[in-house]
Amino acid sequence: MKAPIDFHFDFSSPYGYLASHKIEALAAKYGRSVTWRPMLLGAAFKATGSGPLPSIPLKGDYAKRDFLRSARFHGIPFRIPDPFPVSTVSACRAFYGSPEDKRVPLAKALFRAYFVDNVNIGEASQVLKLCNSLGLRPEIDSQTVKDKTRAEVDAALAKGVFGSPYIVVDGEPFWGVDRFDQIERWLKEQF
Amino acid sequence: MKAPIDFHFDFSSPYGYLASHKIEALAAKYGRSVTWRPMLLGAAFKATGSGPLPSIPLKGDYAKRDFLRSARFHGIPFRIPDPFPVSTVSACRAFYGSPEDKRVPLAKALFRAYFVDNVNIGEASQVLKLCNSLGLRPEIDSQTVKDKTRAEVDAALAKGVFGSPYIVVDGEPFWGVDRFDQIERWLKEQF
Repeated sequence: MKAPIDFHFDFSSPYGYLASHKIEALAAKYGRSVTWRPMLLGAAFKATGSGPLPSIPLKGDYAKRDFLRSARFHGIPFRIPDPFPVSTVSACRAFYGSPEDKRVPLAKALFRAYFVDNVNIGEASQVLKLCNSLGLRPEIDSQTVKDKTRAEVDAALAKGVFGSPYIVVDGEPFWGVDRFDQIERWLKEQF
Repeated sequence: MKAPIDFHFDFSSPYGYLASHKIEALAAKYGRSVTWRPMLLGAAFKATGSGPLPSIPLKGDYAKRDFLRSARFHGIPFRIPDPFPVSTVSACRAFYGSPEDKRVPLAKALFRAYFVDNVNIGEASQVLKLCNSLGLRPEIDSQTVKDKTRAEVDAALAKGVFGSPYIVVDGEPFWGVDRFDQIERWLKEQF
């Protein structure tokens, strides 16, 4: 059995959302599974001295256009949520505080809520409402869940994760939904 | 006749170099010509608060790996030059100080010198040597050439160019050699 693909992302990242629509089919084509690993881009921005795209002069305006065009290009339903971006601490804690077999469906529901239905997943109450609708009751205020989330985010930073999506195949890192062609080549022939 | 494609780049940009190998074939396929527009990324970085990739923690190490892998992916000869990056003011002035019909061959020679032969095109003497080998004698120290170069760089910044390559098709901007698939879709059907 080949090692799973590590899929790092932030729930507030449009490119992470687009990647979430494509990663499983690509992995399955090459006999791989996917380990979903939400992280907090804000923590990575501290390391790289960067910030959310919309806050950057010139690049911010381009980014909004590119989000929309990239979604059309891939045929994925998408809108720029308002507010954007938001803190995804609660979403992350809900993910890591849920049973392992429920995490991926929850992640997909969180992404859809934010980028399709414009639900503010930056608010803990909205995250919990969504969890409830899936029959989940993660204890996002418990120290255990907080510590677990922090440990996962720290582990990602220690691995060098600085953006979203950040996908690792057998130790080889790929940043961006625009690296899927290179990921596929790597899965095929480790070029 | 359809409008030319604007190809903005910095001579010190690996992704700009990769794009220089691909842009003309793509444009020709859709009956377009290409206007090559070297600019100075340093000026754009001042606007966006960014800096050269190698100087950015985490992202810098990833970038080097991605330069090499992207070159392999596209089958384009490439090495990371030393020093990297360099100032491309002299290269830019040589370009804008040369006759229009000699500029594209000069640009290709500058890119090849830097990214294949490891010639330090940050040095004016190296740039002029290369120009001489092509029968060109641009007056890179003349005020006229300096002013012309500055006007071109300022015009790019005013258009919102913040990275390299930055390609504009009929007003639609695309940043990165990893947007060639979207550029092609745009040329085909303005999706």
